[in-house]
Amino acid sequence: MLNTCQALAKRGVEVSFLQVGKHGVVSPGDVRRALRPETALITIMYANNELGTLQPIEEIGRIAAEADVWFHTDAVQTAGKIPLDVNQLGVDLLTISGHKIYGPKGVGALFVRKGTHLEPVLYGGHHERDRRPGTENVPGIVGLGRAAEIAMEKLAGDAERVSHLRDRFEQGVLAAVPDARVNGGGAARVPNTSNIMFPGIASESLLIALDLKGLACSSGSACSSGAVMPSHVLTAIGLNSSEARSSLRFSLGRHTTGADVDFALSILPGEVARLRTISPETKREPVSR
Amino acid sequence: MLNTCQALAKRGVEVSFLQVGKHGVVSPGDVRRALRPETALITIMYANNELGTLQPIEEIGRIAAEADVWFHTDAVQTAGKIPLDVNQLGVDLLTISGHKIYGPKGVGALFVRKGTHLEPVLYGGHHERDRRPGTENVPGIVGLGRAAEIAMEKLAGDAERVSHLRDRFEQGVLAAVPDARVNGGGAARVPNTSNIMFPGIASESLLIALDLKGLACSSGSACSSGAVMPSHVLTAIGLNSSEARSSLRFSLGRHTTGADVDFALSILPGEVARLRTISPETKREPVSR
Repeated sequence: MLNTCQALAKRGVEVSFLQVGKHGVVSPGDVRRALRPETALITIMYANNELGTLQPIEEIGRIAAEADVWFHTDAVQTAGKIPLDVNQLGVDLLTISGHKIYGPKGVGALFVRKGTHLEPVLYGGHHERDRRPGTENVPGIVGLGRAAEIAMEKLAGDAERVSHLRDRFEQGVLAAVPDARVNGGGAARVPNTSNIMFPGIASESLLIALDLKGLACSSGSACSSGAVMPSHVLTAIGLNSSEARSSLRFSLGRHTTGADVDFALSILPGEVARLRTISPETKREPVSR
Repeated sequence: MLNTCQALAKRGVEVSFLQVGKHGVVSPGDVRRALRPETALITIMYANNELGTLQPIEEIGRIAAEADVWFHTDAVQTAGKIPLDVNQLGVDLLTISGHKIYGPKGVGALFVRKGTHLEPVLYGGHHERDRRPGTENVPGIVGLGRAAEIAMEKLAGDAERVSHLRDRFEQGVLAAVPDARVNGGGAARVPNTSNIMFPGIASESLLIALDLKGLACSSGSACSSGAVMPSHVLTAIGLNSSEARSSLRFSLGRHTTGADVDFALSILPGEVARLRTISPETKREPVSR
């Protein structure tokens, strides 16, 4: 499926797609250079969902304001992880999702700065100030609100604790697994995401081996689970297909403990080593999906 | 806000809007005559949300099949009220909503007959077979499924009991309130809806008077609550603006009892009579909203 920008491009809207550097970060200079007199909108995700790398939203916000172009950021991966201030960021539109802040699935929120013109995508009733018709998901909305309150209360503590755990996990992996590399590790990141490349390993094989030992991780985004193509995020930061297919994403969270990290570190290096010894086999007979 | 068909028409898609008869029913002959060689879709709601009148979906389904045109029905008001069989109805697409069958708000279902081509409206992930991106509302979906099961179990009993109560309510009102009239009463209806006109009364005044006595009803659809225009449904069945503004919708349901009907009948005629005596006052000074 196309993403929204690709779909717009297909309909004849001119869309400039920006490249990212090797850590997955957009250059504000590139944003500025891509602006045209008729540019209507800049949209850049705040934290990448696979790498956790943060984009320079505040800096891009200033560029958007100077150019008088509406600016949207997808903060789904950022909300509850680091402080979000729509005025400091200079965004006109900002999206968050309930289930990424320990709230319910099936609900999200769009911040709309006063004066921002929005056309509805769906038509029907007059709900949500004529912007989105349909009977509102009241329990979901209440749950999102409460989850946001809790996220505000816990944010500082969560962020510090989880980033310590993540750093300890990554240092442990890099020390114990030869040639392992943290994708996006050179950039500022949300505290909870760790994307690691294990050269010589098929990530699907390692995923299954770890799962059998009780350690859950991901070979891509949930949006693409079951996909056989290498992650477009990993290829965008310059990984070749084989490198992208040897990368796994580990997610930490509010409920992750030091013991969880110890457990992960106790099994991960051994499983990588074991798979590396049988790697040629694995390559000849890919794990069926 | 436009409805979907109006929005399509605005974008240059040719849309034929059909008239309804005085009970709010579409004529299958009109559907047949409106078909053009390039017609892509027929969409007709199964039961009207304000009147409860049922459309001849099965007959229209045969016309659609003969003409080889895709046929969608909005069965949101029908599900759980009368049996629904997509094959008997001959529909390719059918929509239901969770909260109308005692399930959760914020979730619905679209039946798609195999082979029906759908273009997505939203873009992004590969969820729901590339038709609608976004993390699925799992608790909502489970709740909708369970509500559908319960609806199946209770449907026959509910339908019989509720239609008896509705008929008793309407007979009681017609006997006790001079000039009252059931809108759409001449057509087959879902069992739970009763839309009654009280000539000489401003429906908003009666709504408030009944609410103060503990009887809840509606002066239109929830989608338009707060609207000051007369219902387009009521004007479409030939009511003039004053008649439409003197009509109220009463909804019964699984939890409505005979005592509830008795209670409604014990206060409604008196309130109508009382308001009619002060009606000229009401007209000069409309109740503020």
